[in-house]
Amino acid sequence: MCPHLNGDSLPNDPSQMVAVDLSNGTNGTAVHASSVKTNGANGHANSINARAQELQRRNPYAPRASDFLSNVSNFKIIESTLREGEQFANAFFDTKTKIAIAKALDAFGVEYIELTSPAASEQSRRDCEAICKLGLKCKILTHIRCHMDDARIAVETGVDGVDVVIGTSSFLREFSHGKDMAYITKTAIEVIEFVKSKGIEVRFSSEDSFRSDLVDLLSIYQTVDKIGVNRVGIADTVGCANPRQVYDLVRTLRGVVKCDIEIHLHNDTGMAIANAYTALEAGVTHVDTSVLGIGERVGITPLGGLVACLYAANPEYVKSKYNLPMLREIENLVAEAVEVNVPFMNPVTGYCAFTHKAGIHAKAILNNPSTYEILKPEDFGLTRYVSIGHRLTGWNAVKSRVEQLGLKLTDDEIKDATAKIKELADVRTQSMDDVDSLLRVYSSGIQSGELAVGQKEALDRLLRMHREHTTTRPSSPPPA
Amino acid sequence: MCPHLNGDSLPNDPSQMVAVDLSNGTNGTAVHASSVKTNGANGHANSINARAQELQRRNPYAPRASDFLSNVSNFKIIESTLREGEQFANAFFDTKTKIAIAKALDAFGVEYIELTSPAASEQSRRDCEAICKLGLKCKILTHIRCHMDDARIAVETGVDGVDVVIGTSSFLREFSHGKDMAYITKTAIEVIEFVKSKGIEVRFSSEDSFRSDLVDLLSIYQTVDKIGVNRVGIADTVGCANPRQVYDLVRTLRGVVKCDIEIHLHNDTGMAIANAYTALEAGVTHVDTSVLGIGERVGITPLGGLVACLYAANPEYVKSKYNLPMLREIENLVAEAVEVNVPFMNPVTGYCAFTHKAGIHAKAILNNPSTYEILKPEDFGLTRYVSIGHRLTGWNAVKSRVEQLGLKLTDDEIKDATAKIKELADVRTQSMDDVDSLLRVYSSGIQSGELAVGQKEALDRLLRMHREHTTTRPSSPPPA
Repeated sequence: MCPHLNGDSLPNDPSQMVAVDLSNGTNGTAVHASSVKTNGANGHANSINARAQELQRRNPYAPRASDFLSNVSNFKIIESTLREGEQFANAFFDTKTKIAIAKALDAFGVEYIELTSPAASEQSRRDCEAICKLGLKCKILTHIRCHMDDARIAVETGVDGVDVVIGTSSFLREFSHGKDMAYITKTAIEVIEFVKSKGIEVRFSSEDSFRSDLVDLLSIYQTVDKIGVNRVGIADTVGCANPRQVYDLVRTLRGVVKCDIEIHLHNDTGMAIANAYTALEAGVTHVDTSVLGIGERVGITPLGGLVACLYAANPEYVKSKYNLPMLREIENLVAEAVEVNVPFMNPVTGYCAFTHKAGIHAKAILNNPSTYEILKPEDFGLTRYVSIGHRLTGWNAVKSRVEQLGLKLTDDEIKDATAKIKELADVRTQSMDDVDSLLRVYSSGIQSGELAVGQKEALDRLLRMHREHTTTRPSSPPPA
Repeated sequence: MCPHLNGDSLPNDPSQMVAVDLSNGTNGTAVHASSVKTNGANGHANSINARAQELQRRNPYAPRASDFLSNVSNFKIIESTLREGEQFANAFFDTKTKIAIAKALDAFGVEYIELTSPAASEQSRRDCEAICKLGLKCKILTHIRCHMDDARIAVETGVDGVDVVIGTSSFLREFSHGKDMAYITKTAIEVIEFVKSKGIEVRFSSEDSFRSDLVDLLSIYQTVDKIGVNRVGIADTVGCANPRQVYDLVRTLRGVVKCDIEIHLHNDTGMAIANAYTALEAGVTHVDTSVLGIGERVGITPLGGLVACLYAANPEYVKSKYNLPMLREIENLVAEAVEVNVPFMNPVTGYCAFTHKAGIHAKAILNNPSTYEILKPEDFGLTRYVSIGHRLTGWNAVKSRVEQLGLKLTDDEIKDATAKIKELADVRTQSMDDVDSLLRVYSSGIQSGELAVGQKEALDRLLRMHREHTTTRPSSPPPA
């Protein structure tokens, strides 16, 4: 019905999920068969449409038509904070920190953790061995140059797999290692066969794939696929790729090799999350991430951003795989270790990711959060906040606060109070305390008969009196 | 040759640029004609290939085949820091700050600045009038609800155009304004004709376009196009869109309307830059941005990120339009105004965007910066930095530093010194001062005959002596 290349069994596939729903506990095939009977020649299409409509109802962000190649709901994460992330300018992870990060990522649920090459330094080798001995659920990989010396060291550490990389672009062939394609192919075969002979996973990746000759690239991938490599990797080492380029290259490669396909995307122009998503649509099976995206220069696809866009596509699948409320804790752990702040605009955990401000937004959010939110904050252990003490506020948001405070005001009175909040906020932003005080003063003025709608001077006098009689104001909790 | 829909004349179109080059000063058409003569039936294709190859040589990130719909080298920016940006939780811009931001954006070269609706508050109206009177080169827009009351206020402020928006998704129709499509269409026509009657630009945008019914959407866009709207706008208000969805919707719309198309993209899953790039590939003409992406929740497409990805596609065109070295200054101005830090992984201006760390990267960067850089730091008034005092360093990067320090060491000696740097860095990251001291001690040890390659104990003794005799170390400048 909805085939996935290289797929594991997929209990959370959206089409299956909906199918189960529609058929009251029987499986998707049964539903399909019955609709064929009822609907004749168009039954197949109608059945797909019915499912798509049901999925749309539950999750309006899901694609309207299913896509043969897509692995958006069938992928694995190779978490590279302890390899790519170590190449971030600020990163210096001691053994203790590496172990803390590895354990946190394992608890979050990533399928793989990639470590710095044990050939990089003596401590790197010892740390690799230590992490392999932790008994984590995820698989441990290490990332090496395509060289027998490095491979020999790597296979002795106890890793579950080795990620081999070599530059294939004319840039890297000329200015980095200086080798030609025949030499690269010969070395690749030697290293892959050696790692395979040790009974562990092996991946072969080109470096700077998007500036490599397409024919060279497909040719070497086809060769390593034939000798039984587990995965081939595509790397946008310089961050130059855009989504349609990524889609085209992955889709082409998907037709050439049978093995899994991994993608590694640098973020120099800020497209690494979207490129990863598009790569999954075109059929990659494994995506490289790092926490907060740390890595060389501005880094790679961030774990949190990738999880956010895949959650938006299929929340149930992503929730079933990963411990989403841990995301903030892991980001804070890594941010502290490399001495950076979590960016204010970080997907999910940016400090205002669930803060709503404009009047028309706040009104709708209060009616139904889905109007302006594709991520449910509660699924990530976070909360929503509607900001109302500013000049863009609207009376619907203020009404919601009036109700939270248990005050009794008519709509006209609330609109009148809102006009005063906007006027004050034109001078400076009003805190929630300021807004609450104003609403309480307004309400008691109405109750006592000292105030009516539109009596600006009376309201000003009441607010002045309130300020003079209040030395310390009680602090009120933020709205739920 | 390379037609652009809704295009201005395009001196910086890459195909033209290369054509001029190939033909020694004559225009692109002449070159094309002569290659047709020489090459017969395949001349057209060969000519395109020759141009593409030449462009590839100059700019390896440029697309290999030209694209009929693409406006990647033909677009305008609508800078919305003073509208969308004001919806950012932390934003409170007083008049002075708004004017400073408007002037900076104008000096940078954005084609439009969009301001908060003058109907939002009295101060918003006064600020809008003040900015219109500054005499900036860019056009000034204001952004209003699709409502005659707002439109009447807007046209009196002196703006060059009015951006009209209304929610068209079933979510917004049900939970926000509660209007049906017939009502929306009727109001849209009334507002558009009113604004046009005042002789200024008018744009009509749906809100939450990617969750709106496609037929409703195309129908209303076609209607407003027929009555002469200047632009229609697509908005991903909730940040749910992905690049292929964006491409499909824009391409479909491009075939339905003749007017310009604007796109406004929220960044909830971190895809707003890539979505904007893909929208340009599909034919939009105007892209909304804000400085650092500030806006509702985690904001929209950031100005810097958009400029970075378009620069990567066509550096000459982007350099000719915008004052790139001002980018950092503008970002700092806005970051200070809204009290956030520029994110460490910000494209271009993130503090390590041009820092290279891994040994194999550093070597290649020193040979040719294009190996690992798609953005030239000098075009943005910034500098490159190769980090060497860490355990991932390589001897090629150390060699470059040895040469900068004017020391004379053989390759074997440099490899030996590098091994010592890696050993020390396994314990803690070495500063540039630490590395320089070590290299100087190593070099003087070699000169005096106290040291030879591989004499670890002798080197340790010399380093210890150096530390004991040095109370304050001279600080050395970072490498160029």
